[in-house]
Amino acid sequence: MREPLLSSLLEPTAQKNKKGLNRRRYRQCKSAPLAGSVPPKKDVISSIPNSDSNVGKVHPSFKKVALFFAVYLGLGAVCFYLVRNQIEGKKTDGILDAVYFCIVTMTTVGYGDLVPNSALTKLLACAFVFTGMALIGLVLSKAADYLLEKQEILLVNALRKKVGPSDILKEAETNRVKYKCLTVFVLLMVLIVAGTTFLATVEKLEVVDAFYCVCATITTLGYGDKSFSTKAGRAFAVVWILTSTISLAQFFLYMAELNTERRHRALVKSVLTRKVTNVDLEAADLDNDGVVDAPEFVLYKLKEMGKITEEDISLVMEEFEDLDVDQSGALSASDIMLAQSSKPER
Amino acid sequence: MREPLLSSLLEPTAQKNKKGLNRRRYRQCKSAPLAGSVPPKKDVISSIPNSDSNVGKVHPSFKKVALFFAVYLGLGAVCFYLVRNQIEGKKTDGILDAVYFCIVTMTTVGYGDLVPNSALTKLLACAFVFTGMALIGLVLSKAADYLLEKQEILLVNALRKKVGPSDILKEAETNRVKYKCLTVFVLLMVLIVAGTTFLATVEKLEVVDAFYCVCATITTLGYGDKSFSTKAGRAFAVVWILTSTISLAQFFLYMAELNTERRHRALVKSVLTRKVTNVDLEAADLDNDGVVDAPEFVLYKLKEMGKITEEDISLVMEEFEDLDVDQSGALSASDIMLAQSSKPER
Repeated sequence: MREPLLSSLLEPTAQKNKKGLNRRRYRQCKSAPLAGSVPPKKDVISSIPNSDSNVGKVHPSFKKVALFFAVYLGLGAVCFYLVRNQIEGKKTDGILDAVYFCIVTMTTVGYGDLVPNSALTKLLACAFVFTGMALIGLVLSKAADYLLEKQEILLVNALRKKVGPSDILKEAETNRVKYKCLTVFVLLMVLIVAGTTFLATVEKLEVVDAFYCVCATITTLGYGDKSFSTKAGRAFAVVWILTSTISLAQFFLYMAELNTERRHRALVKSVLTRKVTNVDLEAADLDNDGVVDAPEFVLYKLKEMGKITEEDISLVMEEFEDLDVDQSGALSASDIMLAQSSKPER
Repeated sequence: MREPLLSSLLEPTAQKNKKGLNRRRYRQCKSAPLAGSVPPKKDVISSIPNSDSNVGKVHPSFKKVALFFAVYLGLGAVCFYLVRNQIEGKKTDGILDAVYFCIVTMTTVGYGDLVPNSALTKLLACAFVFTGMALIGLVLSKAADYLLEKQEILLVNALRKKVGPSDILKEAETNRVKYKCLTVFVLLMVLIVAGTTFLATVEKLEVVDAFYCVCATITTLGYGDKSFSTKAGRAFAVVWILTSTISLAQFFLYMAELNTERRHRALVKSVLTRKVTNVDLEAADLDNDGVVDAPEFVLYKLKEMGKITEEDISLVMEEFEDLDVDQSGALSASDIMLAQSSKPER
């Protein structure tokens, strides 16, 4: 479901090699096996993150998400500014408090230092928290990845100078999710230190209390016994709460992704190292000619890895049968011409 | 990443047809095209949810998650019971409050009706909220799906009596994610009504306030101006907060899954309806023999759908080349024997 971050970096090479590599490999399997020239383990790893790159391309665009976000915040600030007399608690500046209340609500931190005290504002807050959650979900699924991609390029470039271009690119693609985890972890640490320092200096909290408030905020716990009560504090909070809560959620998402990838990698490895038996050959032999050619073998193994299913294959097979007008069991240029000229009849 | 819920229901039929169907299809493509006998759209839809069924099988088990959960809650309750004098706020019963505080913290609701007031308890709360979040994530990724599976079978069985067995099974698999969404939505509505009724009757809140508190809780907002303050209320809250917050999160996850699936379906459809040109034929022709046979065509189209990548193919090709000892470009029983006897040499 996730777009491969580093693929854009590596695309030019990958695209260039696509056709050539494929052909070469297949021809080589008839003349000289390529076995061992590329370490299989590395390939197992690098093949996973890109498995649905085409799907990623149809994700909603970053601009669209940013627009939703701006509209939501603008609308929220105006709404809560208009009903500011029906919100009670520690107040500083009208507009700032409205934006602060909006952020504290949409991120579900909910300190409770400002609370609605009329039926209207209560229902308004309910509406805002649900839409806010959906919006944060959208941000998590798209925008955070987009921003991290840029961070990651910087990181890769920095490392590249140290280690040398080809090594680091190979390494970077192999550990793509690990890099994302690392980047977001570093960002999170910076945000935690910044938040603690700010609360200790500007809001005059003790260091333990400042750290406690930071943890209660980034996890969206928000007990509310410690919160941002000054004008400067709320201005800082507006930006800081949003980035830190999203960063922590993104960190958890990447950890989950890392875990899934590790399991997937183990599965791919077990499928590839498992001994091929005559039973496998029989099952893989799609055209029943007694031997298994390369594409048949690839389909069989990919099915075993769970990458594709019987349904996927039979679905494409239907299109194949449609196209194979002369029913030769193979498509040639004449089939294509026949299929297209006969199409209006169907 | 998700295990297909209904696949267990449908497995017997699917397994039985697996080999036979495949062979039959391929033979038919040489004699009589199967075109039109199965509506292509339905197949497009049903093929997606099962795409990584093998991956799902390596997920952590439900029992393991339940065990983590019990240990976490037990440990949390004991810890917070021991430091109950360092927690201030409205108290009812020692053990109950400790469990309630633990649940309010781990779900990140954080009303603030009970707050830690010593450095030790503050740091303890920080540790508990982080581990709690990770645990809730684990529950969301596994246990909720497991429980919903059972709900779903009930739903499918109920509907089956009305509509008839084969129709509903086909329909259920087609709309698998929609069913999950519906089930969790119904559950959520029940929980919202139950929570509102409870707060209005037992906690004596006004109906608007009760609904507001319900919304603030299930979203984990938890302003804390309204919360569970009676002994009965907290006993109810322990179960209700956990189930309702997880249900809402799961609902959002399923909505995202539905959205991803819709986009994926559109992509598959566009790949299958796109006209095949001579350029495609040339690119799909792996063995360069001038024609594209069925497995070659399937691999080409699945690559275009983003289900598999060039790396996936070349990875399996390497194993193929290893196995194809006589370098005939196809595997036969003798290759397998040769490959296995020659293995120790490598």
